[in-house]
Amino acid sequence: MPQDAAAVRLAVSTVIFALRPDHTGQPVLWTPLVRRTREPQRGLWALPGGWLPPNEELEAAAARTLRSTTGLTPKYLEQLYTFGDVDRSPGARVVSVVYWALVQSDEAAQATAGPNVRWVPADTMPRLAFDHNAIVEYALWRLRTKVEYAEIAHAFLGPTFTLAELREVYEAVLRRRLDPANFRRTMIASGRLAETGERVAGAPHRPPKLYRYETPSEGAGSREPFMGERPAS
Amino acid sequence: MPQDAAAVRLAVSTVIFALRPDHTGQPVLWTPLVRRTREPQRGLWALPGGWLPPNEELEAAAARTLRSTTGLTPKYLEQLYTFGDVDRSPGARVVSVVYWALVQSDEAAQATAGPNVRWVPADTMPRLAFDHNAIVEYALWRLRTKVEYAEIAHAFLGPTFTLAELREVYEAVLRRRLDPANFRRTMIASGRLAETGERVAGAPHRPPKLYRYETPSEGAGSREPFMGERPAS
Repeated sequence: MPQDAAAVRLAVSTVIFALRPDHTGQPVLWTPLVRRTREPQRGLWALPGGWLPPNEELEAAAARTLRSTTGLTPKYLEQLYTFGDVDRSPGARVVSVVYWALVQSDEAAQATAGPNVRWVPADTMPRLAFDHNAIVEYALWRLRTKVEYAEIAHAFLGPTFTLAELREVYEAVLRRRLDPANFRRTMIASGRLAETGERVAGAPHRPPKLYRYETPSEGAGSREPFMGERPAS
Repeated sequence: MPQDAAAVRLAVSTVIFALRPDHTGQPVLWTPLVRRTREPQRGLWALPGGWLPPNEELEAAAARTLRSTTGLTPKYLEQLYTFGDVDRSPGARVVSVVYWALVQSDEAAQATAGPNVRWVPADTMPRLAFDHNAIVEYALWRLRTKVEYAEIAHAFLGPTFTLAELREVYEAVLRRRLDPANFRRTMIASGRLAETGERVAGAPHRPPKLYRYETPSEGAGSREPFMGERPAS
């Protein structure tokens, strides 16, 4: 191989989305950031990540760097896209294979707290290191246009949920309030939701019904990644 | 950075699909392969590709290596997926960023002929170098499950086409014959096709009507990549 192929460095980074309340109590998408403690761009916030060691699989490296910086261990990471613009990192050519995951709030609650970890609403990012703002924007665009709501709901809520919880997922992803009665009518008329026959446990009076998706779309099964990006081999 | 990050090498490869007749005259998906003239795995057929130079953009490197080996210059390349299994290449850790494109038959006809370039039906690949068989299978899976037919038809046929041409696209992607009368009824009933008001030029008697997609799906516009993978920035 040509000598200069060795001058390209491989990194992995991860975008995590979790549903958490904003300052008004409305659930919105949040993303964990890590403060850079080394040059270049020391002190700036960045996506969790690190270099790819020669003997570690890409997804394992993404999971390890995510865990070591944020304490998060999502059940599934999916490959999102590889970012490799020549000028994306000062002084060196770095290509980053980016993974992403949607995590439930109980998974998000396991995250490390500390001065170098911070959760930020995904739509109001500070200036991030390198091209990480563009990476978060790309991840949001993919979430909003390419992922089915059955998959998003499954990732954020698990297999069963109330209509109010499902509406909150739509509101967080679409970034606008939806009329509860209209939402209920539309969802029921879609034919894609099924009543589980159960209700929320412990609610004092008329506990809300629990629903599930009638025909889980590809990749939305309980043991499948939320995007279903790779075929079973 | 740790010394060993430099031990990972970055390559690019490209999967091209074109619609061409098989030995029975039926259009099927074909892919160009290049014979490896260097070790490792010298003599095996492989996807067109090469090392990523530090000063070249990923997509430009994919386009250059594709052009230099096959003579093909597709209008759009899209990033498909990054393959990086630790053991995918003997003796070195190589991560490959894979691009793909669907090309029209006139683009495919520009391809270089020679002893080291060969077009093969995508569903009957020989044993390829490295993990390239798995890469082609993944590309076929994405084509068959994730790309809309409006986009596939646009990429293979251009903006206008006859119903027979569109049926051939479906048949090639689905790998089965479709009843022409049923296909016509289903397509017209879908409401997604519009008559252009024109007919195939030069046909002697009752020339077939030309159609286009009524509402091009995202990414299917004439100046857009067929997958629309990245948002406009």
